[in-house]
Amino acid sequence: MRCQPVPEDKFSFGLWTVGWQGRDPFGDATRRALDPVETVHRLAELGAYGVTFHDDDLIPFGADDIRRETAVKRFRQALDTTGLVVPMATTNLFTHPVFKDGAFTANDRDVRRFALRKTLRNIDLATELGARTYVAWGGREGAESGAAKDVPAALDRLKEAFDLLAQYVVEQGYDLRFAIEPKPNEPRGDILLPTVGHALAFIGRLERPGLFGVNPEVGHEQMAGLNVPHGIAQALWQGKLFHLDLNGQSGVKYDQDLRFGAGDLRAAFWLVDLLETAGYDGPRHFDFKPPRTEDLDGVWASAAGCMRNYLILKERAAAFRADPAVQDALRAARLPELARPTAEDGLAGLLADPTAYETFRPEVAGARGMAFEQLDQLALDHLLGAS
Amino acid sequence: MRCQPVPEDKFSFGLWTVGWQGRDPFGDATRRALDPVETVHRLAELGAYGVTFHDDDLIPFGADDIRRETAVKRFRQALDTTGLVVPMATTNLFTHPVFKDGAFTANDRDVRRFALRKTLRNIDLATELGARTYVAWGGREGAESGAAKDVPAALDRLKEAFDLLAQYVVEQGYDLRFAIEPKPNEPRGDILLPTVGHALAFIGRLERPGLFGVNPEVGHEQMAGLNVPHGIAQALWQGKLFHLDLNGQSGVKYDQDLRFGAGDLRAAFWLVDLLETAGYDGPRHFDFKPPRTEDLDGVWASAAGCMRNYLILKERAAAFRADPAVQDALRAARLPELARPTAEDGLAGLLADPTAYETFRPEVAGARGMAFEQLDQLALDHLLGAS
Amino acid sequence: MRCQPVPEDKFSFGLWTVGWQGRDPFGDATRRALDPVETVHRLAELGAYGVTFHDDDLIPFGADDIRRETAVKRFRQALDTTGLVVPMATTNLFTHPVFKDGAFTANDRDVRRFALRKTLRNIDLATELGARTYVAWGGREGAESGAAKDVPAALDRLKEAFDLLAQYVVEQGYDLRFAIEPKPNEPRGDILLPTVGHALAFIGRLERPGLFGVNPEVGHEQMAGLNVPHGIAQALWQGKLFHLDLNGQSGVKYDQDLRFGAGDLRAAFWLVDLLETAGYDGPRHFDFKPPRTEDLDGVWASAAGCMRNYLILKERAAAFRADPAVQDALRAARLPELARPTAEDGLAGLLADPTAYETFRPEVAGARGMAFEQLDQLALDHLLGAS
Amino acid sequence: MRCQPVPEDKFSFGLWTVGWQGRDPFGDATRRALDPVETVHRLAELGAYGVTFHDDDLIPFGADDIRRETAVKRFRQALDTTGLVVPMATTNLFTHPVFKDGAFTANDRDVRRFALRKTLRNIDLATELGARTYVAWGGREGAESGAAKDVPAALDRLKEAFDLLAQYVVEQGYDLRFAIEPKPNEPRGDILLPTVGHALAFIGRLERPGLFGVNPEVGHEQMAGLNVPHGIAQALWQGKLFHLDLNGQSGVKYDQDLRFGAGDLRAAFWLVDLLETAGYDGPRHFDFKPPRTEDLDGVWASAAGCMRNYLILKERAAAFRADPAVQDALRAARLPELARPTAEDGLAGLLADPTAYETFRPEVAGARGMAFEQLDQLALDHLLGAS
Repeated sequence: MRCQPVPEDKFSFGLWTVGWQGRDPFGDATRRALDPVETVHRLAELGAYGVTFHDDDLIPFGADDIRRETAVKRFRQALDTTGLVVPMATTNLFTHPVFKDGAFTANDRDVRRFALRKTLRNIDLATELGARTYVAWGGREGAESGAAKDVPAALDRLKEAFDLLAQYVVEQGYDLRFAIEPKPNEPRGDILLPTVGHALAFIGRLERPGLFGVNPEVGHEQMAGLNVPHGIAQALWQGKLFHLDLNGQSGVKYDQDLRFGAGDLRAAFWLVDLLETAGYDGPRHFDFKPPRTEDLDGVWASAAGCMRNYLILKERAAAFRADPAVQDALRAARLPELARPTAEDGLAGLLADPTAYETFRPEVAGARGMAFEQLDQLALDHLLGAS
Repeated sequence: MRCQPVPEDKFSFGLWTVGWQGRDPFGDATRRALDPVETVHRLAELGAYGVTFHDDDLIPFGADDIRRETAVKRFRQALDTTGLVVPMATTNLFTHPVFKDGAFTANDRDVRRFALRKTLRNIDLATELGARTYVAWGGREGAESGAAKDVPAALDRLKEAFDLLAQYVVEQGYDLRFAIEPKPNEPRGDILLPTVGHALAFIGRLERPGLFGVNPEVGHEQMAGLNVPHGIAQALWQGKLFHLDLNGQSGVKYDQDLRFGAGDLRAAFWLVDLLETAGYDGPRHFDFKPPRTEDLDGVWASAAGCMRNYLILKERAAAFRADPAVQDALRAARLPELARPTAEDGLAGLLADPTAYETFRPEVAGARGMAFEQLDQLALDHLLGAS
Repeated sequence: MRCQPVPEDKFSFGLWTVGWQGRDPFGDATRRALDPVETVHRLAELGAYGVTFHDDDLIPFGADDIRRETAVKRFRQALDTTGLVVPMATTNLFTHPVFKDGAFTANDRDVRRFALRKTLRNIDLATELGARTYVAWGGREGAESGAAKDVPAALDRLKEAFDLLAQYVVEQGYDLRFAIEPKPNEPRGDILLPTVGHALAFIGRLERPGLFGVNPEVGHEQMAGLNVPHGIAQALWQGKLFHLDLNGQSGVKYDQDLRFGAGDLRAAFWLVDLLETAGYDGPRHFDFKPPRTEDLDGVWASAAGCMRNYLILKERAAAFRADPAVQDALRAARLPELARPTAEDGLAGLLADPTAYETFRPEVAGARGMAFEQLDQLALDHLLGAS
Repeated sequence: MRCQPVPEDKFSFGLWTVGWQGRDPFGDATRRALDPVETVHRLAELGAYGVTFHDDDLIPFGADDIRRETAVKRFRQALDTTGLVVPMATTNLFTHPVFKDGAFTANDRDVRRFALRKTLRNIDLATELGARTYVAWGGREGAESGAAKDVPAALDRLKEAFDLLAQYVVEQGYDLRFAIEPKPNEPRGDILLPTVGHALAFIGRLERPGLFGVNPEVGHEQMAGLNVPHGIAQALWQGKLFHLDLNGQSGVKYDQDLRFGAGDLRAAFWLVDLLETAGYDGPRHFDFKPPRTEDLDGVWASAAGCMRNYLILKERAAAFRADPAVQDALRAARLPELARPTAEDGLAGLLADPTAYETFRPEVAGARGMAFEQLDQLALDHLLGAS
């Protein structure tokens, strides 16, 4: 088994992930800030292919142009030296107090305008650095109380914002697509577009829906108790999986951002199986936070673990799919039948077919076992390397 | 305060709600079966305007044509006598063992065909009885284990099914729309289209999306920890709130189906406020289960409570909106600003406006309080009748 | 209805509640620090009777003795001026990085010793300022991964710590009791003593169990989906409700610390009903965080709301209990029968009684309705002021 | 790796587990009833050592004495033939409508008396069949609404019931201990003694606490989002792990009762690690429900999977503990330090030690990494057989 990542694996990390200093709601930072240049070098050594950023990860909020240019130049040099790419970038619209009521849907119009300008500015930089995907996480687009946010009005504003951003990208001729990242809650009591489903639905109402897809995060869907592979499968089915955030979460609770493989291991297995069998060819992006208990050695161990776990699960999923016993079990569970249309004969054919209703014997059909337990045990055996 | 319902309130109940006999995963029935005729009369006496049904609520599964006709005839007479209408009907695709792996997405093709025919048959009856909405709850379209359901294939089958149903309705010239009802889990480990968002997104991929909307159920969204008024607001915003199921749920746990007003009372208040201010004019449909502890007196008390609570909340929400102090508080919280476009000046105007970025002072804007706590306390005062 | 609090209501607030500056996992502070003296004066004006503190709320971590004495002196003067009392104090064992793996159960022994000394020091101050209850919230006594914490060893250390603290209090002759505060998770993935039940059970293993009780926090229990009044009723039943933290939480998610009355309103009603009918005479302590969206006006509005809501609910609960219709409904639901022993006749009498088994007719007994829906509707009517 | 179970593994199953017919809240039975004799034989063939039962699993509710004796005799013969033992028995106090408001805490006193007599009767049979543990799951001891259950009174009744049962066991000279099984909710909205912690605390108030321990069920704790190994570790620490129910659950939702190994796999690994390293020598009892999709072949495959997964995890946990690299990692994470007392020098020594406070340097201690991520990755590698 190959557990050592190579660039062809397309593993990428956000600057803010390994760079998280460990400040949480109840405690101060436990680690020093990382220089983005240091991060790029370390990620390259570990076998990653890409690095991503929020504007403020690279250039401190409010920095003047000289500081900005210096930061960008140093970062670009590190990219050139290491060969790392920037497949994605995003905007920080949540740390500064000005965004305390959201950004594109803040009640204050001047905040909304500032948020748009901040985003447009970073889109320029993202494009300049080669990003093809721009992620939008509206983490503070929400509310803690009922009257504080008029949701239909807020959705109007959100649509307006995305339509403007898309217009900009088209007018500039940028080769950039947007990936909306859903989250149900935290840091707001409830966040708009709380799940992959809500984001997909919203995209259908935009002026240029083709420019928009989703960026599902494993833990965010699990915070709503949802099945992550199911949600991502629907995104794939709708042609909208533009990017994704891999991490770990132990059920319905605060946002944990554990390394990939921690948390719900079986969901991680099925997710890797889905991505690999569906031919998803985008980045495998890790959006995690090395626990606050770790020093920098622990940070890099955690980052390495994300990639190692993906590779182990990928190998196990491939072995599962290749196993003749599994193929038999899939047939026993009638998966091939699910792949067949229900009515190739059309509505008329279906209505005219007595075996579909008049002579159908539900008791007989209902007595058939589905053989799912045997299939699932084979899957578990493969996951555990015990087959 | 008027707490006595009248038909103009458009309250409706499913036969299966008051008719629930109290069979749960750990216990046998505690109540006798109700005759649908008795139910219609009792609901009319209580002030309801409508009654809804699954095919099998009215006509036992597998009944012959004579029994079927008798059942329909008696039901129709009860409707005629009482003046109750049938605004909605739906199909039972979950009780019989034949549906143990789902209906439209069962791995077994013959089960899928039977499910479609069963649904088509009941659409005829629904239309005959005057229903304008046909609800589809795919409660067993899901899985307990990862390989048991190929989700993209299952979504293909689900789309195929709904496209066929819509074709039938159009070909028959029926004035009937479909409302898809999402649920995250139970009775399956995970159910496809788990939330309002996923259902809305799915609808966008159908052949005749205009014929499809959603039927959100309060408790179903709350089982995923989601904010119900937010989800329903998005459905309204997308023009897709075709019907809804009102009930109560105490957080993330098994499906409780408590009477409306039980469970999360503040969410119920905001939901009524939303429906009434948005001008939703469809049925206020209760899909609840009177607890298993109750005898039939308790059943009817529970049904009456659903309507009473809606009326109380409606009055309280109206008083909240009409209160000048609330209007001041909404202004203080800048809700009117949220209703304004962010950039009537367009992208060019926004980019050219230095006050949007270059001279904008985030510290000043960030120091403004949003005044949400005062607003929310006013709302709570109104809810409690303590203002 | 009296909604204006007076000291006799025994409302108290932590310095850290109104003093929270709004730093959250995704954002910087939105409010300036409050001087404890300012807080004491404002709380007194609002009608509170008490103020509570962590050592570091009053005296910055690491402050020298002069700074310490000055801080204490100014605080004491404010207490004297306003008449506010200090019914409770506690230790901050979570903010500084040294506590990143916990305090009394940190793997590092020197950290554990430091944590004990820090606590002992603040116990002296607490006693000096008149506190009779010392709260212990072990927010970082936990883990994110399985091998990182040997739970039986950690419980040994936790017991050792509490036994030492109790020994100190006894040796010093302090009139002080400890109240352990449970929480299921956040900021650690899982926290030891996650619920009221676990803390109560743990107390039974201490050397001086009589000195220990619990300090349940509304939101903490709700983060585990538990019924708060039930848990607090068990604490009362076990004679262990030494203190409590009132606030609001919207279900199973991150720790929200909303003002009391926000979140699950019906649970708040039943909690007030329980406290008032059980004769709980300790402080009604609010441990909440005014949302980050608020400026200081919003902070004080939020604090005032906590007290107002308690008073409204108290009046509504009293009216509910006094209503003759409610008393009839309680009888109909056989609550008086629950208050009777099951077998005053003892085991022998029970075994000899044929009506208890041999001639008992379960079908007849099983057919009795419990009349709970009617009772609950009366409660809701009273809560809503609609009876 | 040995995956084939033998009696020495002490695997046991309830009659009601493999015998579950698949009736759920939304569907009818999908499988025929199993004869207990058939079950005993099949379990023996699969390698189990024990079988457990509710009274009504063996003898239908209300059966006359002849039917009872026949059933017991046939069951006993099957045990004799196969060598299977009955390590535990329990009472069905939830299926019949008479228990709709609970059993030992039903508001109706005659129901409580009947429940006690039903339990006493089955204790006789349990003892006769050799059981040494009697499980008490009070699944309906709870409520859906606030006033319906006076919790302190209900706890009085619960205590009264257990005290009577213990008196009986002592008077009869039975060698039998009770294990209370907690569950947070379902089938009641909230259940008394919702977690392991609450049950442990309650036991401390009984007349004969030594006769009582807990029977934690994996899925029940996970329904409250709790860490199962942590809760069971506390039960072990308090000397109260008398029995346990192994199964699988996918997070906070309805009670799934999946086979052991399904659901949260990492929690299952840590649980097996805990049981094996703590020297727990009781039965490894599976309380699961083969999914309703399965026929009887699937039922037995599911039962076999429970045991297979335990054995795989046991081997993996042993390899983890034996690995020198793990031992190094445990040292690096200072687990051995956690096993040392914090203050062997006693309170006086601690107070006199300047290194504990006066000269302690929190910044230095706070900068140490805990090395938990490396340790957890080693654990995951062992779990996956990828080390």
